[in-house]
Amino acid sequence: MQLYSYFRSSAAYRVRIALNLKGLPYEYIPVHLIKDGGQQLKPEYTRLNPQALVPTLVDGDAVLTQSMAIIEYLDETHPQPALLPDTPVARARVRALAQGIACDIHPLNNLRVLRYLKRDLDLPDEARDAWYRHWVESGLLALERMLADSPDTGAFCHGDTPTLADACLVPQVFNARRLDCDLSAMPTIVRIDAACLALPAFTQAAPDAQPDAA
Amino acid sequence: MQLYSYFRSSAAYRVRIALNLKGLPYEYIPVHLIKDGGQQLKPEYTRLNPQALVPTLVDGDAVLTQSMAIIEYLDETHPQPALLPDTPVARARVRALAQGIACDIHPLNNLRVLRYLKRDLDLPDEARDAWYRHWVESGLLALERMLADSPDTGAFCHGDTPTLADACLVPQVFNARRLDCDLSAMPTIVRIDAACLALPAFTQAAPDAQPDAA
Repeated sequence: MQLYSYFRSSAAYRVRIALNLKGLPYEYIPVHLIKDGGQQLKPEYTRLNPQALVPTLVDGDAVLTQSMAIIEYLDETHPQPALLPDTPVARARVRALAQGIACDIHPLNNLRVLRYLKRDLDLPDEARDAWYRHWVESGLLALERMLADSPDTGAFCHGDTPTLADACLVPQVFNARRLDCDLSAMPTIVRIDAACLALPAFTQAAPDAQPDAA
Repeated sequence: MQLYSYFRSSAAYRVRIALNLKGLPYEYIPVHLIKDGGQQLKPEYTRLNPQALVPTLVDGDAVLTQSMAIIEYLDETHPQPALLPDTPVARARVRALAQGIACDIHPLNNLRVLRYLKRDLDLPDEARDAWYRHWVESGLLALERMLADSPDTGAFCHGDTPTLADACLVPQVFNARRLDCDLSAMPTIVRIDAACLALPAFTQAAPDAQPDAA
C-alpha cells in the first residue's frame, strides 16, 4: 500500500494511526501542502484525489480517499485488531465520536480554511487564532461530555482498545496543543490522549516522526 | 423511533432521506435552531446531544447522533434496501463521496459558522455569501469530477440505486441552489439530484415538506 500524506495533516495522521494499529506496512509518499504552491494541487495528484486533499491510500488497483472511509476500508479488509466494536449501537457511538471531530471540528481549522481567512478575508492573526480556538475548544468540550458521561468510555474512547474514535481524537488534540487551546476542562480527553500516546502505533504516526517533517 | 430535526438542517435532511428509503416510520420532533435563542442549546436537548446539533435519532434505549453514523446504524439494523454497496472498495467509494460533502463542504456553510462570520467577525453579507459559494462550488466541483470520471457512477452516485452518498448529495445541492451557487459545471451532480428528486423518499424528506417548515 502507498499512503500519500503530509506530516502535519490531521486526516493523514488518522490513517497512519490505523495502519500502525493494524500492523500494515506502507510506503510513505509525501505531498507537501505548502511547497511548490501546494503539491496537492498538481494534476498528478488530483488525478488520484480530485478533492486535492490528503490522504490518499492506494491498495493495489484501489485508490481510496477520505480518512474515515479509508479506516473503515482497512477495518473491513484487515479485521484484526478491530477499530470498530461489534454491535450497531456501539459502532454508531464510535462513528459519532469520530465524526464529531472529522465533521464538526477539523474542517474549520484545517490549512485551506485558515488560508482563506487570511488571504481572502484579510483577517488579522489574532482573529484567526480566536476562530481556531473557538471551534476546537467548543467542539472538544462537547466531546468531553460525550466521553465523560458514558459508561462505554474506557481506557480509550470506547472500551479498553483503540478505535476509529481514538484515531481521530489524537490528531485533533495534537492540533489543539499546537495552537495553545485550553484543555483544562477536558480531563477525559487528556487522559485518553495520554493512553493512546503510550502506544507505538500512535507515536510512530505523529507528525514529527514522519519522513517529511520539517 | 423519534427524530429530532430542523426542517432546513442538511444533516437532518440526510437522515430523513435514509429513513424514508428504508420505509421506517418515525415521530418528527422539531428543534428550532433560531427560535428561543436556539432550542438545540436547551439542557433538555443537549442531554440527548451534547454537541447541540441536529439530528438526534432515538431508537428504543439508543440515542444516536451524527447523521452519517445514524445512517450506517440504520443500514446495519435494517439492511434492506441497502444504502451501502457490497464490496469494501465500493463501500469506501460511497463513504468517500458522502464524507466529501459531510466533512469538506457542509461544515463550512452551516448555520453556526455563518453566524460566527456575521456576529463575531462582523463580515458584510457579501463576503459571507462569497465564503459560502467558494466552499460549496469548489467542493461540489471536485465531487463532480469524482462522479463524472468513474464507471461506478450510475443513475445515482454509485450504481442504479440510492446510497448514503445520494442522501448527502441532495441536501447539499438544495443548499447550493438556495444560495444561488453556480451548478452549470456540474452536469452529473444535477442529473443525479434530479433522479433522486423523482423518488418520494427524497421529496418527502425535503425541508418544505416538514411539519416545522416556516
